[in-house]
Amino acid sequence: MNKEITPRDKDYSQWYNDIILKAGLADYSAVRGCMVIKPYGFALWENMQSQLDKRFKETGHQNAYFPLFIPKSFLSREAAHIEGFAKECAVVTHYRLKNDESGSGIIVDPEAKLEEELIVRPTSETIIWNTYKTWIQSYRDLPLLINQWANVVRWEMRTRLFLRTTEFLWQEGHTAHATSEEAIAETMQMLNVYAEFAEEWMAMPVIRGVKSENERFAGAVDTFCIEAMMQDGKALQAGTSHFLGQNFAKAFDVKFSDKQNQLDYVWATSWGVSTRLIGALVMAHSDDDGLVLPPKLAPIQVVVIPIFKGDEQKKAIDEKVMPLLEDFKALGISVKYDDDESSRPGWKFAEYEMKGVPVRIAIGARDLEKNVAEVARRDTKAKESVSLDGLANTVHVLLNAIQNSIFQKAKDFRDSRITKADSWEDFMEILDGKGGFVSAHWDGTAGTEEKIKELSKATIRCIPLDNPAEEGKDILTGKPSIQRVLFARAY
Amino acid sequence: MNKEITPRDKDYSQWYNDIILKAGLADYSAVRGCMVIKPYGFALWENMQSQLDKRFKETGHQNAYFPLFIPKSFLSREAAHIEGFAKECAVVTHYRLKNDESGSGIIVDPEAKLEEELIVRPTSETIIWNTYKTWIQSYRDLPLLINQWANVVRWEMRTRLFLRTTEFLWQEGHTAHATSEEAIAETMQMLNVYAEFAEEWMAMPVIRGVKSENERFAGAVDTFCIEAMMQDGKALQAGTSHFLGQNFAKAFDVKFSDKQNQLDYVWATSWGVSTRLIGALVMAHSDDDGLVLPPKLAPIQVVVIPIFKGDEQKKAIDEKVMPLLEDFKALGISVKYDDDESSRPGWKFAEYEMKGVPVRIAIGARDLEKNVAEVARRDTKAKESVSLDGLANTVHVLLNAIQNSIFQKAKDFRDSRITKADSWEDFMEILDGKGGFVSAHWDGTAGTEEKIKELSKATIRCIPLDNPAEEGKDILTGKPSIQRVLFARAY
Repeated sequence: MNKEITPRDKDYSQWYNDIILKAGLADYSAVRGCMVIKPYGFALWENMQSQLDKRFKETGHQNAYFPLFIPKSFLSREAAHIEGFAKECAVVTHYRLKNDESGSGIIVDPEAKLEEELIVRPTSETIIWNTYKTWIQSYRDLPLLINQWANVVRWEMRTRLFLRTTEFLWQEGHTAHATSEEAIAETMQMLNVYAEFAEEWMAMPVIRGVKSENERFAGAVDTFCIEAMMQDGKALQAGTSHFLGQNFAKAFDVKFSDKQNQLDYVWATSWGVSTRLIGALVMAHSDDDGLVLPPKLAPIQVVVIPIFKGDEQKKAIDEKVMPLLEDFKALGISVKYDDDESSRPGWKFAEYEMKGVPVRIAIGARDLEKNVAEVARRDTKAKESVSLDGLANTVHVLLNAIQNSIFQKAKDFRDSRITKADSWEDFMEILDGKGGFVSAHWDGTAGTEEKIKELSKATIRCIPLDNPAEEGKDILTGKPSIQRVLFARAY
Repeated sequence: MNKEITPRDKDYSQWYNDIILKAGLADYSAVRGCMVIKPYGFALWENMQSQLDKRFKETGHQNAYFPLFIPKSFLSREAAHIEGFAKECAVVTHYRLKNDESGSGIIVDPEAKLEEELIVRPTSETIIWNTYKTWIQSYRDLPLLINQWANVVRWEMRTRLFLRTTEFLWQEGHTAHATSEEAIAETMQMLNVYAEFAEEWMAMPVIRGVKSENERFAGAVDTFCIEAMMQDGKALQAGTSHFLGQNFAKAFDVKFSDKQNQLDYVWATSWGVSTRLIGALVMAHSDDDGLVLPPKLAPIQVVVIPIFKGDEQKKAIDEKVMPLLEDFKALGISVKYDDDESSRPGWKFAEYEMKGVPVRIAIGARDLEKNVAEVARRDTKAKESVSLDGLANTVHVLLNAIQNSIFQKAKDFRDSRITKADSWEDFMEILDGKGGFVSAHWDGTAGTEEKIKELSKATIRCIPLDNPAEEGKDILTGKPSIQRVLFARAY
């Protein structure tokens, strides 16, 4: 166990922060609630972006860029939207600084006050739909399938690295359609893109579901989500896809003429995932020795560490390793040869363990004689002596095995954290015990959901898409219920 | 000539705006001075980003991300820096909106005032160097080679699409070094990366030079730049690379211990290019019919347009074209087959001309019989009947020829716009006539440069790196000068 990291069972929250900081994913900044994403963390984000962006483009979307600032009056146009975001807005009120004549330094110039305040975008529906008004006239302009990679700001009171920061990076898709059916199909398509990305790339199993009214995006008709389970038994919303109906089209008066030349409001969706996914990735797989990264997203998939005394041994190892590195690269494997002589192998082992590099290969003089290397998996810590012949192929297969194995482990854990409860006592006992999702009956009212939240700190994470109908009684009120829903305490 | 575009000789400025809007590169937004980058413009930016990012990584840099907000006190820490940016700062003063109790709608909550105002980053030296303080202790932490892709805000009074917008997208490199020599070498390396990108990818010739004191970046010891020449004879600064000396290290107290365990301040560079490059690209190559894009950056390199009457002809063309498209893709050529039946070929020809697609291929029923297609170059408008056998290879060669030809044309033009002047009358006559760079003697003082600017609206664009020593007399004051410098009116 790495001594610098607080063990999970001692303090899960501190364990999480330790990993983020010590693996070099991010750092605190001098600006309240904002973080610095360090190169290693950003490389992880770039890998995520690249795969997501590919999927967005394959499904017909194009990237664009809309202004950072939203006029206050725009944000106020859709009633539920402003209600949801008003309390967490960073507001630009002035556009100039000046030297204070009384000598107290640099001050905001009171004469440079904006006529209308600008909000730093917490999300971009309003500025985008105001633009779509000029882009959409006819059914021929539809569908309009646009995505934006951007930074957004939500003035959160309690922040956590990656999971909840004042500024974060995300992508937000904003699409416009001629019919409700098309918009709903788009909403579901993007939910599935997110779910497949989470499972196939992040190796993180997710439940696809729909949110209750209380948890709906401010301005949406329906919010769909993917929900993941962290190792401490808390749920984490990993992505959302919203069917916005005609709400924003009405707020910004965006109409189109259909083939029959009839005017109607345009139908909308929006969907997003953010750097929060990095927090989810950390919490889903890592252990008390540091990060565990799924090979498909790891910035470094394989590290090769030479173990030698003197230049002669080093040279012999180099000669063997150099062509091996080419083999790895030819297979598209990201490999690092760490022959830095200023650190000892033991230090390097701990360092790459901390950084979650999926495969570590150590080669010493004796290994060379036997034509083998020691290959160690980060996830299981299993070590094996492997022939240097065809090593890159062996490792290629191993990386796939690790990807699958990490997913299976997370899935087994997640499945063990879905528990049915049929009484309030059981409900609370599960939540206070092993945690996880509690599948319980709900009478379908917002009021009951709120009461349950008050009493248990658990919210309805989602109503799974494949939820079976089942008659029962609400876990708290005993009123009739038509289905179970998933409750959990959540990030 | 495309009738929708104002000709250059009638109104160059309107011509520029017409192209940006009608080619679908960008649109105005509801936020003062901010633009919307439309999908076609953003695809161009993505192509630029991808090549630049590759070069940054090849030269050892890693991407990271720092906060959008800068505490006001940080910006004030370096005297020249705050002096340069104070007048154009967007200032966040509050973090919440609320319902006005008097019923006048949504207002800024006066109780949610920040203790210290936050500036939306106009550039990130200060927040980054405040962070570097915690990252750098020893020579082993150096060099630190980091780049950030980000949005920045400068409250400009007069804005122009892409060339000068309140918010723009850019990259900013921020590096830290143990010695002055290393930092200067980095500054020059990145200047060369920019110059090669401009010339080889944008097909835009540039002059590498150093800025005079008046035009130096606020906080830099020296600013190096690449300067391009637009078709109207005005210069455009396309990228800058700054040697910052120890200015920011001193302002943020960033010291390192060297191998002899001596403490010293760290040496710094910063360098950036922005979405302004898109404006430069438009102005460098386009004509009265629309955009002209260099093939290496064009989002669509080749468009294939079928010309047919009836389904049978269409089917015959499709059968021939489909394998051709695969040939193009196999050569890495981005190709679009536009068989949309709702637009006529003539309309499509004009549309892709407007969008600057480098090669247009038209195939009709008669062409099929002859096993040929009509291949048209966007840049010269030359059309040729070309055999369908090996068409992809033919076009591949043609795309390279177009890239070179566009560069050569721009270079010939630029070279014709560098003129020596040895008297004030000549100087003004050139500026008021054909414009361009005027190579003239300068006495080396900031005062004279300012006077010249007042009288002529021309500034010193740069002192070229390969400038020969030449004794002479200042063009205005007649005082002794040791070299000519390049003056121009500029964007």
